[in-house]
This record gives sequence, C-alpha cells and structure tokens, in this order.
Amino acid sequence: MTYHTCRIELLCLGTELLKDKVNTNIVAIAERLQSLGLSLTQTNTVGDCSADIERALKQSLQQADVLLICGGLGPTFDDLTRECVSKILKRPLMFSKKIVLEIRKKFGSRNVPMPIENERQAYLIQGAIPILNRFGTAPGQIIPYKNKSIILLPGPPSELIPMMDRIVCPYLKKKFSRTLTRSFVLHIFGYPESEIDERIEPVVKKNWDTKDIKTTFGILAHRSMIDVKASVEGKNKLKVERTISRIKKELYDILGNDIFGQNEETMESVVGNLLTKRKENLSVAESCTGGLIADKITNVPGSSNYFKEGIVSYSNESKIRLLGVRHETLKQYGAVSEQTAEEMAKGILKKSNSDWAISVTGIAGPSGGTKEKPLGLVYFSIASKKNIFTCSKKFYGSRLEIKERSALMALDLLRRKLSE
Amino acid sequence: MTYHTCRIELLCLGTELLKDKVNTNIVAIAERLQSLGLSLTQTNTVGDCSADIERALKQSLQQADVLLICGGLGPTFDDLTRECVSKILKRPLMFSKKIVLEIRKKFGSRNVPMPIENERQAYLIQGAIPILNRFGTAPGQIIPYKNKSIILLPGPPSELIPMMDRIVCPYLKKKFSRTLTRSFVLHIFGYPESEIDERIEPVVKKNWDTKDIKTTFGILAHRSMIDVKASVEGKNKLKVERTISRIKKELYDILGNDIFGQNEETMESVVGNLLTKRKENLSVAESCTGGLIADKITNVPGSSNYFKEGIVSYSNESKIRLLGVRHETLKQYGAVSEQTAEEMAKGILKKSNSDWAISVTGIAGPSGGTKEKPLGLVYFSIASKKNIFTCSKKFYGSRLEIKERSALMALDLLRRKLSE
Repeated sequence: MTYHTCRIELLCLGTELLKDKVNTNIVAIAERLQSLGLSLTQTNTVGDCSADIERALKQSLQQADVLLICGGLGPTFDDLTRECVSKILKRPLMFSKKIVLEIRKKFGSRNVPMPIENERQAYLIQGAIPILNRFGTAPGQIIPYKNKSIILLPGPPSELIPMMDRIVCPYLKKKFSRTLTRSFVLHIFGYPESEIDERIEPVVKKNWDTKDIKTTFGILAHRSMIDVKASVEGKNKLKVERTISRIKKELYDILGNDIFGQNEETMESVVGNLLTKRKENLSVAESCTGGLIADKITNVPGSSNYFKEGIVSYSNESKIRLLGVRHETLKQYGAVSEQTAEEMAKGILKKSNSDWAISVTGIAGPSGGTKEKPLGLVYFSIASKKNIFTCSKKFYGSRLEIKERSALMALDLLRRKLSE
Repeated sequence: MTYHTCRIELLCLGTELLKDKVNTNIVAIAERLQSLGLSLTQTNTVGDCSADIERALKQSLQQADVLLICGGLGPTFDDLTRECVSKILKRPLMFSKKIVLEIRKKFGSRNVPMPIENERQAYLIQGAIPILNRFGTAPGQIIPYKNKSIILLPGPPSELIPMMDRIVCPYLKKKFSRTLTRSFVLHIFGYPESEIDERIEPVVKKNWDTKDIKTTFGILAHRSMIDVKASVEGKNKLKVERTISRIKKELYDILGNDIFGQNEETMESVVGNLLTKRKENLSVAESCTGGLIADKITNVPGSSNYFKEGIVSYSNESKIRLLGVRHETLKQYGAVSEQTAEEMAKGILKKSNSDWAISVTGIAGPSGGTKEKPLGLVYFSIASKKNIFTCSKKFYGSRLEIKERSALMALDLLRRKLSE
C-alpha cells in the first residue's frame, strides 16, 4: 500500500511516446522526486492532439497537487502544450519580450536568424514564472494555480533534466518536503516469488505504521531474481531510521544468506568482494553458458585482481585439450553430466593454479534435449584446492533465460561456498 | 495531429514504474498495434494502490474503446488488478477450477507444490475469456464490457509479449483493423547517427506518399547501433508492398555492406549464418571483452555447429600459457598492443585448429589508461588460415559500453571479412 502526502502527477506529451520511443523521463523525474522524499503518484501519456491533451489535463487537475507536463513546447504546429494549458486554466498567453530576446540571442550566437516559428516559444501562461532553458530554446514555466503547481517542461531529457535539477527540485523541496524517506532493496536468487512472499509475510503484515511513520513493502521478480523492497516515510529522522533498520534486521533474520546483496550490489560484485576479502582468485570453465559467467565477472571494475581466466569449451575436443576432461568420461557419461562438470572444474583449477574454479555444462536449447537429459538440465561444479561440490538443476525458459539463470546459479553457489 | 478511429488506452500498474524501472511495455505494445494499423491514444501509469488504480480505471473507461491493463496479476498482496477491475466494473470474481489446475500443473512439472497464494491467480472477472500464459502462472483476461474490450495482461515482458502476439493482436485485428502496414528495420554499426542520417537523406526526402500510401521513416541510435526504420501504410496490398521494397532497395544501394542485418537479425546471428554458409568455424581469444564475444556468439541457437572455443585470458600468464603469446612481446609492447592482439589470434587459431579466430585486447576502464594507451583503446585481430588483419580503435563510454562496443566491432570486422 502506498500512501501519498502530496499527489504529484506527470503528463507526458508526444505521439512518438505512443509509437516507438521509450520514455526515460518518467524514471529520471521519479528518482529526483524520491531524493526529496516525494514520489510520483501517476503518469499519463497522450499524443499531440488538443482534444486528448485537454481531457488529460482536466482529469489530472481534479486530483493532483503538482502537475508536471513534459513536451509540446517546441516551435512547430504540433506543439500544443501552451495553448491547451491556457484554455483549461482559462488564463491567457502573454508574449514576453524578454524571452524572445533570449531566444533570438541563442540563434545569433550560432549566426542564424531566429525563424519566425520560434516566437511561439516566448508566450507564457498568465502568472507563470519562466524557467531559463540553457540547452534549448523553449523556457519552462511554473504556474501557481489554486494551491496547486503546474509546471511545464520541454521534452528532450538534455533540456528537462537540468531544469529539474536547477529550478524545479529546489522549488518542490521548499514547497513540500517535510517528510523523509529511507528505503532499501534486498536481492534474492533461486526461489519463486510466491515462496519469498510467504516467508516474509510475518514482517510485511506486522503493524509498523504509527501516526508519524508510514511503511511500504514491495516484492518484484525480474531477470530471474527477486527484489524485496521496503521504505519508511515520516517526519522524525530518528524514528524513520530506527524503523527501517528494524525491518531490515527482521528480513535478514528470516532470509539470511538467501539474500545475496542489497541496493546497488549485483551477484558478480558480491562474489568479487568476497574473493578480494579472502585474497583468493578464480577461473571458470563454461559450456552451455558460453562465456556469460566470465562476462558478468569482468563487468566489475578491478576484476582483473581476482579473475585469472575463462575457458568456453563448446566442443568435446576443447574440453579434452583445454581442461583435461578424459575421453572415456565424455564417452561413458556424456558432455552434460556430473562427471564431466567435475573434471572440467578440476581441470581448470589445476591448469590455471587458481584458488577457486567454477564449471557449468548443460543443455540451453532450443533443441538437444533427450528423455534422460531434458532441455534445461545443467550441471555445476565448484572446486577449491581442498574440496569439490557438484550439483544439477533443471531450468525452464528460452535459451537466453537458461543461460542467464545458469550463470547466476553458478555464481550463487560460489558465493555460498565463499561465505560459509 | 493524430486521428483516432478507435481509442485504445493502456494502463500500467506497478509502483516500480513510478520509481526506478523504465517501462518498455508501452513501445512493445504500441509497435504491435501499429502493425495492425491501430494506435495507442493514451497511456497511464499508477502504483500498487487500490484508490489510484480505481480512479485511473474510472477515468479510462469514460473514453476508451479498448483498455489494456498491464501488471498487478501476480500472486502477492500488492497485486490488485483483479480486485480493482471487479469493483469498478461491478462484476464478481469467479474462481476457475480449470485455471487453478493449469497453474498447479506448472508447479508440478517443476516438482514443487503450488503455494496457496497462487490460487488468487485463478480468479476471472465474470464474463472474461482467459488467455493462457505459457511463460508464467497468471492468465490474461479479455473482458467484453458495454461495446468496449478490457484486456488484462501480466507485467513481465516475457509473459505479456507472447500473449499480445498470440491472442490480443489477432483479437484486435479482427475487431478493428482495415489498413495494412509493411515495415522493416536495417541495422548499422560503427557510424555516428548524424552521418547515417545525412547519407539516407535523399531517400527519406523523396516524395513517396500518394493519396493511398503513407510512408514513415525513423532513425534510432541504441546500444551502439543505428536502426533505420521505414514503414508504409495503405489499403492496397500490392501498392504497399511495391513501395516498401523500392524504399529498401534504395537504402541498400546507399548503405551497402554497412548494413549488417535487418529486422530480427543480430550481429551474432549474421556472423553465424555466414560461417554456416561457408562451412567454416571460429574460436575467440578475449581480454578486455571478458567473455562477451563468446556469450553473444553462443546466444544463437545452433552456434555449437561453428563455434569451437573461447579463451578469456585475463592475465599475462594466461595469454602465454593458453594462447602462446611470447613473454618478450608482452614485455616489449605490453598486453594492450597490436603485437599481442596478433599473437593471441594466431595462437588460438593454431591451437584450436579453427578456420577463423578473433582476438581483442584493450583497456575497458574505469582506470588503467596512460597517455600513450588511453582508456578505451582496443586492438583487434581477425585471423584466417591465409591472412591476418589487425587494427585498433579508441572507444568512449563506461566500462560496460566499451566492452559492448568492442565485442560488436570484433564481430563486425569478422562479418566484413566473411562477406568479402
């Protein structure tokens, strides 16, 4: 359940956003609002059509305390924001000589005369405070209206984001932000969402809220992982921080080492940190993951300090020559088997003289499965100089999903061994 | 100006979409509607809060002919779509034994009992037609309601998109579509967007439109690549198809082999097809790309037919032992040098006895650059049994961007050699 002290809505204008352009402004604005302890309650998108814009404006004005409007401030015929807002608020557009001079100066500095179309950008809604546009021609506008604030911003992120940072965020901060938010996200791999949901239920259902404190929980499955999110809102910093750390402790008590990381951490950065702490290094031998494990490991800056090498042995011949897997093992048990996984891990551990080795061999599909060895069956070995651990798992999904889940599982198995 | 014959709205549910998750479903759905000659008129997003969802539902139902609702069909406490839609439409939720059996079967095939929470997913709005979910547990629902259609879909793209393609698009096509669209996308790597824009200008500016035919062009830079899109709309199938194939021919005449693929093709699938056609195979030796090239190659089903092995030699010692790079080369020229790249490619070509070999060595950052060898400098070698070709390029961007661009450049260099 989300609780809104102040209702902020975002209206995005532009037919391209309803066709082929992914809208990144929503997240850019949302993240900035969150850093002020505020949040976006709703966002609507409509095309460049007056009737649709006016309808959306009317609907948002019924409920929003702040209405941010992005886009439609350009100089051309299909830029309709100014006219529509003027009509719905019943406030005339006023021509600003000061702004037209600024726009003209911008063209002048490029040695181009200002096209007549750009004059349209110098009209402000009556009562609006203009926001200077350093990276384009259309100014933004802050319009105080019946206890509400209506804020017009240009659509291009390169113009919008500097205006948010320089003017809009300080304005909203001054106006609203009395509440404070603290939040965290815990990352879990290898369980179904519903199982995690059941395990954390006692924490989620507990009555954390008081008259000063509002808590929100969320659970989200994405890219084969589960994120458990919690956030606490309130006015008293000490109470907010005490509550959030109690919630985190209770979730850790329940989920323990099943949590592989939090917030910005990734599986590969956590494994990297554990290896760095232990001053140990790693090599990997991959078959069905095809280089994805090495790719993930080397996404972490500084991974050359603990990652020695990776072998992608995509043929039997490579498994024999590069990893020392025995010909008889392949013949007797097959390339996708416990025995081959084990020999792959032992082989690379020895040849590279590493502290740890991971090996993966399986059937990523879409074909190649048999009754005994179905599509999605993957064997894993984790070897250290002292021990070797081998297991298998049957995955579901597309070729790419099986690769992704197998790579994460291999790293998670190593993580559990490293933190034992 | 957009003209709507039929008003289609999309309501996205999920607090994460108002916080930190970029919503890619909008464009995925919009593109599918466009291919039917339909378009999205408005899209709204609200968080997981009943009051907000109900308000948004009421507003959309005032005007929409079709209301698509994505997300909030999961099994957990914050999945509220079913309950809210039931309340606003004043239609009860009906428990479906058939669906609960299907969900139970899914868990059963993974040898897990169905958690009690998932029972919630077996409730349908009275009068709804269920849409089978092949990639998850929550079924979609098509609800005919007062001449309108309300369609509930799960939020994860991997579940939503197959449902759109398999059921929702054919349903809407039958219901609404009268115009026909044909389109294509051409993929280009290694040029700035503005250069491609300039080269294709003669084709884009040409007057393709007639009274029956409407053409649209687009150019989009994403993930280090450029996409050139063209689409033709009209009622006469022959005219539409003739126009689209003329446009494609003219773009190919200008861009030639700089186009690496079209539509669903990826760099790695194109390289795979070329190798398959030539009945040749490939091995790769990677340093700074850390396994990403092998990962990309093995994303293609059937790549085991032409990919022999990959070596991620992340230390000098591995370059010497696994690839036969000479100690003196590393000492005299360094690991990031033309000489090392060449010895890496020659080494793996010979050891793996492959027809082709790629090697990459460079500085992916964020640290490790010097004045002579700056951050982003990468050397590439492409070796065949007859020839070797070596070059270097300085990339800009983050560690992950440099890895991505280097991997694509290596594959593109090989593609150009293979198609010579």
